[in-house]
Amino acid sequence: MIDKKQIALDKHQKWHGKLEIKPKVDLIKHPEELVDAYTPGVAYPCLEIEKDEEKSYLYTNRHNTVAVITDGTAVLGLGDIGPVAGMPVMEGKCVLFKTYGNVDAIPLCLKTKDVDELVRTIYLLSGSFGGINLEDISAPRCFEVERRLKEVCDIPIFHDDQHGTAIVVSAAVINALKVVKKDIKEIKCVINGAGAAGISIGKLLMKLGLKNLIYCDKVGIICEGMEGLNIAQEEISHLTNKNHLKGILKDAIKGADLFIGVSGPNLVTKEMVASMNKDAICFPMANPVPEISYEDALLGGARIVGTGRSDYPNQINNLLVFPGIFRGALDARSKEISDKMMEAAVYALSDYIKEDELSPLNIIPKATDPLVHKHVSERVKEAALKK
Amino acid sequence: MIDKKQIALDKHQKWHGKLEIKPKVDLIKHPEELVDAYTPGVAYPCLEIEKDEEKSYLYTNRHNTVAVITDGTAVLGLGDIGPVAGMPVMEGKCVLFKTYGNVDAIPLCLKTKDVDELVRTIYLLSGSFGGINLEDISAPRCFEVERRLKEVCDIPIFHDDQHGTAIVVSAAVINALKVVKKDIKEIKCVINGAGAAGISIGKLLMKLGLKNLIYCDKVGIICEGMEGLNIAQEEISHLTNKNHLKGILKDAIKGADLFIGVSGPNLVTKEMVASMNKDAICFPMANPVPEISYEDALLGGARIVGTGRSDYPNQINNLLVFPGIFRGALDARSKEISDKMMEAAVYALSDYIKEDELSPLNIIPKATDPLVHKHVSERVKEAALKK
Repeated sequence: MIDKKQIALDKHQKWHGKLEIKPKVDLIKHPEELVDAYTPGVAYPCLEIEKDEEKSYLYTNRHNTVAVITDGTAVLGLGDIGPVAGMPVMEGKCVLFKTYGNVDAIPLCLKTKDVDELVRTIYLLSGSFGGINLEDISAPRCFEVERRLKEVCDIPIFHDDQHGTAIVVSAAVINALKVVKKDIKEIKCVINGAGAAGISIGKLLMKLGLKNLIYCDKVGIICEGMEGLNIAQEEISHLTNKNHLKGILKDAIKGADLFIGVSGPNLVTKEMVASMNKDAICFPMANPVPEISYEDALLGGARIVGTGRSDYPNQINNLLVFPGIFRGALDARSKEISDKMMEAAVYALSDYIKEDELSPLNIIPKATDPLVHKHVSERVKEAALKK
Repeated sequence: MIDKKQIALDKHQKWHGKLEIKPKVDLIKHPEELVDAYTPGVAYPCLEIEKDEEKSYLYTNRHNTVAVITDGTAVLGLGDIGPVAGMPVMEGKCVLFKTYGNVDAIPLCLKTKDVDELVRTIYLLSGSFGGINLEDISAPRCFEVERRLKEVCDIPIFHDDQHGTAIVVSAAVINALKVVKKDIKEIKCVINGAGAAGISIGKLLMKLGLKNLIYCDKVGIICEGMEGLNIAQEEISHLTNKNHLKGILKDAIKGADLFIGVSGPNLVTKEMVASMNKDAICFPMANPVPEISYEDALLGGARIVGTGRSDYPNQINNLLVFPGIFRGALDARSKEISDKMMEAAVYALSDYIKEDELSPLNIIPKATDPLVHKHVSERVKEAALKK
């Protein structure tokens, strides 16, 4: 048997870091450029930017630079592994930003979990960047961090785990429902994991028409008035589970048309999938190990299965979102990532597959198709310039 | 007449940022690498680093990454132009780090001048980097920022304006004194500008044997017991100007063998240079406009002139120092930049020019010679491993 762990470790050791800095000025071939790229000539763009900060988008790489920032508290499905241990994911993210969006992304891991400190530190850094991609910060702190940063910063702030995931899942849901010919207003949806991603997915699906939504988390089925909810969970408890169903995931999933997992490994059994409604749609998206394996979900009877992994069909991964979202936002020189820009990204992804090409194995574009990212970025830019 | 300003601005606009991010993993040619570079494989190096943080030097680019951090308060000789306006210099610095040291350097401009906040912010960032290069932070705050960061961080901290400048000036002084056949113990030296660079230069020259040193600053000649000195200046007032000379720069410079300017534009006249001792050495190093032009210093009678600029002979620029210092420190996986490592850099630079090749036009290696940086890095690495 191939040792997947050893392969991944060997490759990382060989890469010895997945990014490097590439100067755009070749001082080896053209040492005379030093006079302008450095002293004395560099003083002139400095003075122009001092007079008008907007010029930083003209004379520096700010127009194309995004920081990918984490505190390491919710890395993949691994949990709070700390900022330094989160770096391989952040570097990977930055590789994807450049590969698919031509965005220069810089990975930063912060050694604090304190909300005030995170907000202040990221604000202090914000003058160096054209945008901030928050990453793998645990809920409910991530909601406050994002909200407060949007208030104090004048550049786009995007919490990828929330909105990136919500956008790609929504696009996958739209297409999966087309395949099984069900109406989003009529279906029952269960989301397991009421964290950053889960809450954001539910909110966006409700905007798209979903009425019957039940959340589960470690406390079981989330129900209005129950104890032990954080502030974000309490808020969604008022909007979901209208019949006040109680119990655990196994109880919630019975008869559901759509299951979305953004929780942890192996929490769903074949039997649970079998208890879902006909033509069940099953999106177990925990990384690296999903709630139920792709194979078992099919064996359990799901008609359409999607995971977050790149080694199975229907990879529902926010990789489809963040390169295009930021490319579009940077190209439009937008000061924010607005709801309209996010909605444009949802429909850019769902429309990308023609109706007659939709099938249970093809509900979402392949992230390795460079054209899909261009398509998303154009639609996002359009939406940004329209408002 | 060529408009130097317009040329520099046009080039910066054409470059549109002097750096970009280059992935080391080619996902366009090898999309299958996604499985290891991102999810699910990336989880394995994360978990290894969680168990042992040192592994971040094996599985991420930390082993080769340095942050170039400023608060924009003392950019070149331009002063407090703000963090965003400092970015063109930081990007230039990062180009030089990569070109001459193969160090991946990331420019960060912080929107605060508060010492506590600077220290805390940089500490919080330190897990992302293999070293920190502090840049263009005004004195005397820079001394405290550097001292406190060295206490709390376990990676090399280097304030380039202090130590980088002190190292390259010391190497130039050693060689210039060889040319004019004077002994450092016998000469009179005047330093104009008792800020970060000036104070660090004086301290290093005194370590190398200098006895007769006079500082000038905006307050005039710095003299023990005088009012209006900051804490760093007060400290050096006890070590310099033993004869308690009072007055202004014009009074101090009379009869001096060596003038070092790290202050501002056009503060020295031809007449002042003419009042210096025979075989005067004149290093007006303010950027972009020196204390006296190269031509005027020669016209005033100086035997050896060096500036910080790349468009004249004898460029005494810390560009000769930082790429090699950090390359050596990173290669040795040193936790600090020690005094011994800095001394090794001084002699690496002065020894690089053979004695029979020394001349008034050739006292310091050319920064565009890639071999000099390699030479510095090897000597610094040696010194780091010896301790």
